[in-house]
Amino acid sequence: MLLIELDPESQVPAYLQIRDRIVAMVHDGVLRPGDRLPPTREMALTAGVHRSTVVRAYEETRALGYLDSRPGSYTTVRRRARPPEFGGPTGRGSGLIEWSARADRSTGGIAKRRRPATRPQADDSVIDFDRLAADPDLAPADELRRSVSKTMIDCGADALDYADPAGWRPLRETVSRRLRAHGVAVGADEILITNGAQQALDLVLRLLTGVGDRVVVEAPTYGMFHPLLRLHGVEPIEIEMKPGGMDLDALERVLSDGAPSLLYTMPNFHNPTGVTTEQAHRERLLQLCESHRVPIVEDGFEEEMKYFGRAVLPIKSMDSNGLVLYVGSFSKVVFPGLRVGWIAAPAEVIARLADLQHVSCLAANTLAQAAADRFSRRGGFAVYLRRIHRVYRRRMQTMLGGLDRSLPNDVRWSKPVGGYTVWLTLPRPVEAEPGICDEIRKAGVRVSPGSGYFAVPPALSHIRLSIACVDEDQIEEGCRRLGATLSDE
Amino acid sequence: MLLIELDPESQVPAYLQIRDRIVAMVHDGVLRPGDRLPPTREMALTAGVHRSTVVRAYEETRALGYLDSRPGSYTTVRRRARPPEFGGPTGRGSGLIEWSARADRSTGGIAKRRRPATRPQADDSVIDFDRLAADPDLAPADELRRSVSKTMIDCGADALDYADPAGWRPLRETVSRRLRAHGVAVGADEILITNGAQQALDLVLRLLTGVGDRVVVEAPTYGMFHPLLRLHGVEPIEIEMKPGGMDLDALERVLSDGAPSLLYTMPNFHNPTGVTTEQAHRERLLQLCESHRVPIVEDGFEEEMKYFGRAVLPIKSMDSNGLVLYVGSFSKVVFPGLRVGWIAAPAEVIARLADLQHVSCLAANTLAQAAADRFSRRGGFAVYLRRIHRVYRRRMQTMLGGLDRSLPNDVRWSKPVGGYTVWLTLPRPVEAEPGICDEIRKAGVRVSPGSGYFAVPPALSHIRLSIACVDEDQIEEGCRRLGATLSDE
Repeated sequence: MLLIELDPESQVPAYLQIRDRIVAMVHDGVLRPGDRLPPTREMALTAGVHRSTVVRAYEETRALGYLDSRPGSYTTVRRRARPPEFGGPTGRGSGLIEWSARADRSTGGIAKRRRPATRPQADDSVIDFDRLAADPDLAPADELRRSVSKTMIDCGADALDYADPAGWRPLRETVSRRLRAHGVAVGADEILITNGAQQALDLVLRLLTGVGDRVVVEAPTYGMFHPLLRLHGVEPIEIEMKPGGMDLDALERVLSDGAPSLLYTMPNFHNPTGVTTEQAHRERLLQLCESHRVPIVEDGFEEEMKYFGRAVLPIKSMDSNGLVLYVGSFSKVVFPGLRVGWIAAPAEVIARLADLQHVSCLAANTLAQAAADRFSRRGGFAVYLRRIHRVYRRRMQTMLGGLDRSLPNDVRWSKPVGGYTVWLTLPRPVEAEPGICDEIRKAGVRVSPGSGYFAVPPALSHIRLSIACVDEDQIEEGCRRLGATLSDE
Repeated sequence: MLLIELDPESQVPAYLQIRDRIVAMVHDGVLRPGDRLPPTREMALTAGVHRSTVVRAYEETRALGYLDSRPGSYTTVRRRARPPEFGGPTGRGSGLIEWSARADRSTGGIAKRRRPATRPQADDSVIDFDRLAADPDLAPADELRRSVSKTMIDCGADALDYADPAGWRPLRETVSRRLRAHGVAVGADEILITNGAQQALDLVLRLLTGVGDRVVVEAPTYGMFHPLLRLHGVEPIEIEMKPGGMDLDALERVLSDGAPSLLYTMPNFHNPTGVTTEQAHRERLLQLCESHRVPIVEDGFEEEMKYFGRAVLPIKSMDSNGLVLYVGSFSKVVFPGLRVGWIAAPAEVIARLADLQHVSCLAANTLAQAAADRFSRRGGFAVYLRRIHRVYRRRMQTMLGGLDRSLPNDVRWSKPVGGYTVWLTLPRPVEAEPGICDEIRKAGVRVSPGSGYFAVPPALSHIRLSIACVDEDQIEEGCRRLGATLSDE
């Protein structure tokens, strides 16, 4: 005889109340494995419910693993592992698997990574010369909100459905039009939309490299490219950045030693140095890679950020042999969180990258693609670009002037024509860099230590400064603090 | 003497008109490499503009690669590769690189892939028993639109900024609360947000497998898991699906031969068979993997689709040793195009997966995460689920009834308690499958051929039917057409 009291006032259906009472009795030890439950007819009488309610309650309880029942036989209580309580051992890795050993085998190389690019919790007294991404304070949030909303009205359920793995067709067309304005003659079939430029680089490495391969990079180069190479088991061959770009004589020697899988370069507003290469440098770089049949991955992450007005066309604009894979992104210019990037490449490469995209994540976010497309087509992007060009032209002038006034004479720095970054070279060995950066941090300035952009540490200390998310007053004050700190060294 | 005529009515600034005229003259052969341009003062007089306009025009032209100039010397015309015209050879892969050979080395294995899951262009007469994704006609598009819009108002620029690589914190909390309702006791630190479940699986394989490793899968299993294994160079060990789930005796023998890297299973509404395993099966599966220390990847892609009401808790709910990596997603239930999925796993595994996420794509789309979170928190998801449960309960009953009435006696099929898929086993060898599917297609029904879900072809022909995107009338008619076709065989 088992007494189950139901609460007639409860919102919980009777069958679930019965189920929960049985489960509680098992956990409390009132019911033990092997105990028989009353037949459904008897339980229905006791509990004052219809028999079908008890049948359903037993079925539910059985599904949870607390009961055994066979047709024509009694229903009995079953031994069942108690579901762990919240805060209990589950997920605490208490246990059986040595996760770190397993993970290190595949991905140990990436552990040395930079911290996320998310905005730090604001401490108004700290000046952030570290963050390299579109300034949220300048973001065209209202315009984008309208674009998203109108997109969802116009496209209806399509905006919420899977996109083509190669990307939302209208956005592929829009990107190809923008690229044509930069002299790159590609059609929509030569564009793949990705979850930001980082995923674009990951896809390209997946397609064109294997473990043990070599890839040519600038030294220094984009800080998140090195861990990506390590993830792919690929060895970087570093070529020194000169004031005019990668040392092409050194590159020629490297290429003569055997062709690498690809060469990765940022011709505009190079990250971290801020260098923009000249047309002649681009031509020779392309010609060298053509003669050694080495694909070029051209990272045009800030193509739109030429606010000092001198137009130099991308290497891809001269790519009559289909050798260049051009990577672009909205993230460094506007709304990084939408994760919309792209690759422009020969159609047969795009088709293979789309296969990879399909297998690794099905497709990129449709709504983000459709909204970014509408925002660009309706002219919002062009208006926004004009606005931020004015802002960044002033910020960069302020930064270069401030450094001129504040820094000791023996510090050198780049003079970018666009983008966000200025690269300092200090007259101190690289071993001094952590200490210097520590002093700078104590003075209330966030900067990015230069050694994070190399595979092999360089001789001297370097610092990358970014004007992406600081206003002119902050830049002035930051330069003063930097100057005071570096003069004390 | 070089005559440049400016159009005073033009919107194009004078310096750009001069630049474009010089470029045109180079391309027309009027100016040739080595030719001298007039000094800026002279050109200014000829063109009737200020000298600084000419200086700027020359600078722009030089940046495009058409001029050489050295301080104190004449400006001369430079040899420059002409940028390719749109439609020209660029990107047509005319050329130097044999892309297919390079790509096949790394990713040749994935070429055999299923077509994208995008909705085919509607032909009203065709009945789509193929597509497995939330029905766009049922999508709560207006509710989501309001969620997106309110999210952007409330979160402002944060909704457009980078998210934490592990995910948007509020959504991690929401997912952990939903999982607790399914008996899975995990906190927000044990959740990683991904770009859909497919990317979750990719991350897990990146973390836990290497080339040549072995992974246990059900046979049949999710069709897109096999190409993903091939991409990772991992060998599948197939364990036969019985009516009650994976054959655990066969699994025990396999595990005794040496531990694989992981085991992949779908306990609920298994894709493609529709089988939901019982509690006892889940317990034994967990116990076997615990004793051989094999991590379980539990794919709960349709956890919310139990519309016949019997609750069986996920394997993860019993995971007191932190052995189970649980993968979930919104995509099969609501708005696939948002690409929001998740992994629930021990916190140390999540931390490593977040590192991988950071290196491979920085982070998932912030806006999609924030909007999905708001939609769930405000109860929109719960309301929507109740609605689609009613719809799919009727659709599944209609499908099972229709098959009963229409199919020949010698065809067998599964009787799912939720989800979308029904699995047919035909009394014909697998070699007959393409022909049968071809006949079905000619009869105006799209289905998914069963052999796409196996690595090694099974003995018999199978067909997967999905009720995801067909209404009851279509299901009735589809069953009639299937019955007529299969009876003719």
